[in-house]
Amino acid sequence: MPASPLDTIMNPGSISVTGASNNLWKMGSIQMLNLIHSGYTGDIMPVHPQEKEVLGKKAYSAIADLPYAPELAIMVVPTPLVPEMLEDYGRLGTRHAVIITAGFRETGDEGRKLEQKIITIARDYGMRFLGPNCLGIINSQLPLNITVGPLLKYGGSFSMASQSGTYIAQTVNYLFKNGIGFGKAISVGNEANIDLTDCLEYLGKDPHTRAIGLYIEGIRDAGRFLDVAREVSKDKPIIAQYVGGTDAGARAGSSHTGAMAGPDFIYEGMFEQAGIIRAATIEEVYKTGWALANQPGLKGKRIAVLTNSGGPGTAVASTCNAAGLEVPEFSPEIQQRIGSYLPGHASARNPVDLTFHIDMETLTFNIPDILFKAPDIHGVIIHGIMDTGFMGLLYPYLKEVLNISREDLLKLGEVDVSRLADMPEAHGKPLMISSFFGIEDHSITMFHDRAVPTFDSPEKAAKAMAALYSHFKVRSRDPEIYSSRKKFPVPAAAEKLIHEAGKGSVNEFSAKNILKSYGIPVAREILAVTMDEAIAAARELGFPVAVKACADDLAHKTEQNLVFLDIRTEAGIRKACRSIRKAHAQSGILVAEMLHGRRELMAGISTHPGFPPCVMFGLGGIFAEALKDFTIRLAPLTTGDALEMIETIRAREVLGRYRSMPAVDREALADILVKLGDLALHFPHIREVDLNPIIIVDTKPVVADALMILQ
Amino acid sequence: MPASPLDTIMNPGSISVTGASNNLWKMGSIQMLNLIHSGYTGDIMPVHPQEKEVLGKKAYSAIADLPYAPELAIMVVPTPLVPEMLEDYGRLGTRHAVIITAGFRETGDEGRKLEQKIITIARDYGMRFLGPNCLGIINSQLPLNITVGPLLKYGGSFSMASQSGTYIAQTVNYLFKNGIGFGKAISVGNEANIDLTDCLEYLGKDPHTRAIGLYIEGIRDAGRFLDVAREVSKDKPIIAQYVGGTDAGARAGSSHTGAMAGPDFIYEGMFEQAGIIRAATIEEVYKTGWALANQPGLKGKRIAVLTNSGGPGTAVASTCNAAGLEVPEFSPEIQQRIGSYLPGHASARNPVDLTFHIDMETLTFNIPDILFKAPDIHGVIIHGIMDTGFMGLLYPYLKEVLNISREDLLKLGEVDVSRLADMPEAHGKPLMISSFFGIEDHSITMFHDRAVPTFDSPEKAAKAMAALYSHFKVRSRDPEIYSSRKKFPVPAAAEKLIHEAGKGSVNEFSAKNILKSYGIPVAREILAVTMDEAIAAARELGFPVAVKACADDLAHKTEQNLVFLDIRTEAGIRKACRSIRKAHAQSGILVAEMLHGRRELMAGISTHPGFPPCVMFGLGGIFAEALKDFTIRLAPLTTGDALEMIETIRAREVLGRYRSMPAVDREALADILVKLGDLALHFPHIREVDLNPIIIVDTKPVVADALMILQ
Repeated sequence: MPASPLDTIMNPGSISVTGASNNLWKMGSIQMLNLIHSGYTGDIMPVHPQEKEVLGKKAYSAIADLPYAPELAIMVVPTPLVPEMLEDYGRLGTRHAVIITAGFRETGDEGRKLEQKIITIARDYGMRFLGPNCLGIINSQLPLNITVGPLLKYGGSFSMASQSGTYIAQTVNYLFKNGIGFGKAISVGNEANIDLTDCLEYLGKDPHTRAIGLYIEGIRDAGRFLDVAREVSKDKPIIAQYVGGTDAGARAGSSHTGAMAGPDFIYEGMFEQAGIIRAATIEEVYKTGWALANQPGLKGKRIAVLTNSGGPGTAVASTCNAAGLEVPEFSPEIQQRIGSYLPGHASARNPVDLTFHIDMETLTFNIPDILFKAPDIHGVIIHGIMDTGFMGLLYPYLKEVLNISREDLLKLGEVDVSRLADMPEAHGKPLMISSFFGIEDHSITMFHDRAVPTFDSPEKAAKAMAALYSHFKVRSRDPEIYSSRKKFPVPAAAEKLIHEAGKGSVNEFSAKNILKSYGIPVAREILAVTMDEAIAAARELGFPVAVKACADDLAHKTEQNLVFLDIRTEAGIRKACRSIRKAHAQSGILVAEMLHGRRELMAGISTHPGFPPCVMFGLGGIFAEALKDFTIRLAPLTTGDALEMIETIRAREVLGRYRSMPAVDREALADILVKLGDLALHFPHIREVDLNPIIIVDTKPVVADALMILQ
Repeated sequence: MPASPLDTIMNPGSISVTGASNNLWKMGSIQMLNLIHSGYTGDIMPVHPQEKEVLGKKAYSAIADLPYAPELAIMVVPTPLVPEMLEDYGRLGTRHAVIITAGFRETGDEGRKLEQKIITIARDYGMRFLGPNCLGIINSQLPLNITVGPLLKYGGSFSMASQSGTYIAQTVNYLFKNGIGFGKAISVGNEANIDLTDCLEYLGKDPHTRAIGLYIEGIRDAGRFLDVAREVSKDKPIIAQYVGGTDAGARAGSSHTGAMAGPDFIYEGMFEQAGIIRAATIEEVYKTGWALANQPGLKGKRIAVLTNSGGPGTAVASTCNAAGLEVPEFSPEIQQRIGSYLPGHASARNPVDLTFHIDMETLTFNIPDILFKAPDIHGVIIHGIMDTGFMGLLYPYLKEVLNISREDLLKLGEVDVSRLADMPEAHGKPLMISSFFGIEDHSITMFHDRAVPTFDSPEKAAKAMAALYSHFKVRSRDPEIYSSRKKFPVPAAAEKLIHEAGKGSVNEFSAKNILKSYGIPVAREILAVTMDEAIAAARELGFPVAVKACADDLAHKTEQNLVFLDIRTEAGIRKACRSIRKAHAQSGILVAEMLHGRRELMAGISTHPGFPPCVMFGLGGIFAEALKDFTIRLAPLTTGDALEMIETIRAREVLGRYRSMPAVDREALADILVKLGDLALHFPHIREVDLNPIIIVDTKPVVADALMILQ
């Protein structure tokens, strides 16, 4: 296994900084200040043309003057200076750099050239670097912080890589208030040398990291990203936000890091395929990521909800349900045990609602103890624990009456939640805390200290629990069907037909023969040249038949009236042939069996710059475009991917037993999708394949119409 | 206009409290403490059997001993005491009460009886009350606070009514940290006397309230709620969370306030019809509600985004786009003006990204001034303003170097955002602020003081802006089509046919004649008794025809093989007739024209306990159930409602020009929906109507099959 350049970048033995000075209003100075205060114990060697000392550290007037080659160079200098200085470091023997400086590819052609220059320099000197246009790194295990944000809390097991530096460097305070700290964090900037996928791979192998957060504006090499993510997610949860899928998002991202975005539906499919949990907001990346990293995994979907106020309890239950979790009524036995702790009008059914209740022993110990021990409960969500936060609010009113100091009152009110905080580990079940109080509340800070995730809104706790369940499902994927299969050999017939077809749209008969060579079931059909041949074909196939024009570069046949369905007589064949010939003298006549089935699906291949070929699956028929009920995966597909696609469409119910129709043969359908992936990879000049409709005949999918476009 | 009982309850001239004592660990005591400290200036008269004084106020040993009838009675006494004490107040002449005490309907049969008892007492004495099982009220304008939460901030124009007391009384601290204060707030509890709709009506008329938040677990009288909400939302935005739509949500709600929930899709449709903005979380109710109340309305959907960090800018732009707003590239002129303030590699396109930038003048004044003045920009979102929050973080590192006190450093860093805070009002355009800092940041507190909404995550600011646009659309509804129409008279034919049908499922011929009497277009068809009549009918209609069995209580005809389509010959008619007669000797033979059209829709009536009849509209055909692409409205429908339904389904694209098909006549479709609403209201014993498919013939909808069930 080759070492990652990030091994050194995240754990440098010595660091040189260019661009820091004693002017504290400069970004480089703030970053060096943070580096010094982060607890980093290696040498810190600033380079500065004038200063003898920078922020208390001996400064060197030039890179060449450094006493030895630092393991890591950090550069916050003006843009035009970067190439030369990078080369100076390279010449000295430094092999790793973090280039904070912006003004490269993201600014246009000039910047692009400059970026190419530093890429070349790095290649020449065997250097690897993060950035440019990034905001640095954090490694809590070393420790090391070279971002602009002074860390308030070092974290353990939640790590993050981000295409926005802000989300690494400038949310310190926000994270602290939410009890979150980064284990490792990497701002990737323009990814000129080390990219997000490298970071994901590195964090995937990092023994200190248990869950990974990603902020994504556009992935460069989606195929590699998918491979890496798929491998990592088997073990560690990955939660990612993708924001490039809208027009404005793509435009904003492009001026931000110069990244190429892609349609949202590709990322949606790629994330599902990769086992990545998708976050809608950065808040979810952080908070749910923290929960994923710090709580035992869910092993089922039955959740207990405990609360002292009805609204939040109902909201948690409702959000759990909507997200696919269950909030089951407890067994009578459990209800009875809970009941002994409840006030008169409280409910023990689940949610357990203590109603307005100030005694915290029941809420933080007695009932949780029952819930964590209950064998058929997989996770616990509690809302309403509070102590000094609430007391502090009341103090101004109480002080006169009670004649007590604020500190004494708060001390009096403190609740020890450590027994509760230990329960998840002891029972191997996750716990989420919802509270409208934050760090002004002592109980919340106790949870923070013990890495129990807290959420300031009940719905968020429920959604985080649902994310744990998503990861459980990914973790439970059957390796039998999710491991990549033996490669399907390129069929000779396909090779010949595609070679003959040249460019543009392949005629339907050839397209179907190509599919057939992959074992994809297509309608029985015969290509006729003369009218008599067409009649003979119909006789052979048996009436009724479909008659269609068949030639290269002939698309949208239905709209051109070149398709005649359900022809029952020879006269009908003749009429159809005449119509076709009239419009297209050179066209062949394709005579095909009529397929009987009411369920119409579609599958296909689409290609997008920067992505491996995409295999699509969805509802078919002439309304497919309007229904937009489809999903995609990137080729190659495993059988597991294909089966998941089938379960992903909204109208999946039609694939089961539906009215008087039998359940569709899902394996046969999955096989089509897997083979489309093979086809796409075998012939990279296939631009598009559109199998619509695929008609379900009894239980079997059969391709009724096929469009294939080569480029 | 009759006065609302809430006029007095929210503005009582005098208050008596039962259940408060000098024991500060009791809920009633805390509430009285809050009442005293809220600044309330009327008489406060506690009733207590032993104490001479409660919390410094002269106490009375019995209600009968009070010197005069208080305008409002607040009761926090043990459950069994409530009826008697309520009666005591009634006897004394008090006409309004807030019953905090729980233990009524929400606990089961015993509680239900007790609740009935207090309802009766109130009726006997002409009293109106909130609760029981509620947490009180807040009126910032009086001021008055009788909740358990001591208020940190009194608000102005955002008011709330909630079926969870927690969301009124126990989120004080959370609201304060987010700069939010209630103008008026009402916890409705079990709604035994005054319900949520009363509160909505009251707040709708309250001159101090500019936006209303609702938390809903179940609405009692949905028809009245809809009428009131529809009226209020014409002027004031309403934002509501509904959590009763899942199994667990419904169960939790029922043990919370004993409310009857309803399927989520009904609330979804009812909210749309009522012009209510739906919130997914309580956070959204609060924060977006606050934004709706305190910012000028949006008058279009073109949003400017200004940021000093790329990620949040991209996230805002992306979320805006996904929510239906535009983040358009600025005109060259505007870009040029902005450009003069930008550092080298910043983008002026929109989002404007200043990149990491500590000078706040550009971010808080220069560029916002351009954006607010730009004529084609309707709203502004800014991310990244910060001052003392960031400085405070750095202070521990800076103090040694700068030799400055914390206070001096923070003072030095303070940014005056008042000019920015004034821009929305001055230009009549809304502003949303996104920042990862909270009240530890001076600029954030300045925004809070000036009621400029701040959000701790960029996506939330964008979603709030989208909510303003939702309200703009509601406000812009054309009164011409949204005002309730002249009542459609009950057609005599319908009356006769429905009377004849009795109970159960009406035969298809009659069902269609009933529809016809409303002017709903149905397929031409003839009911035959004999085979000869059937043949004659087919001749009259013209082949091909459909032949179906036709009798009362005959549903699922297709599954029973009682429907024969596309019959082209007399022999075919005979065969079909024989099949039908064999299965159903008594059945009539319905001969119908074959409708030609590929677009199949569905419409219908469904009934649900507690709701007016629902009119449904969606994609039709045999897969309708699986597609689940439908929407509902409550009868009666306006034409505007019906037209909105048509635009609401996911597959709405099929209704436009689609492939070679012309656009559907939307008015004709809307007319069917409106008339279904009339039909449902005319005959309340209609349990279900299912028109599926409605086939679009050329541009016109025609009902091909109709099922009607009476109860």
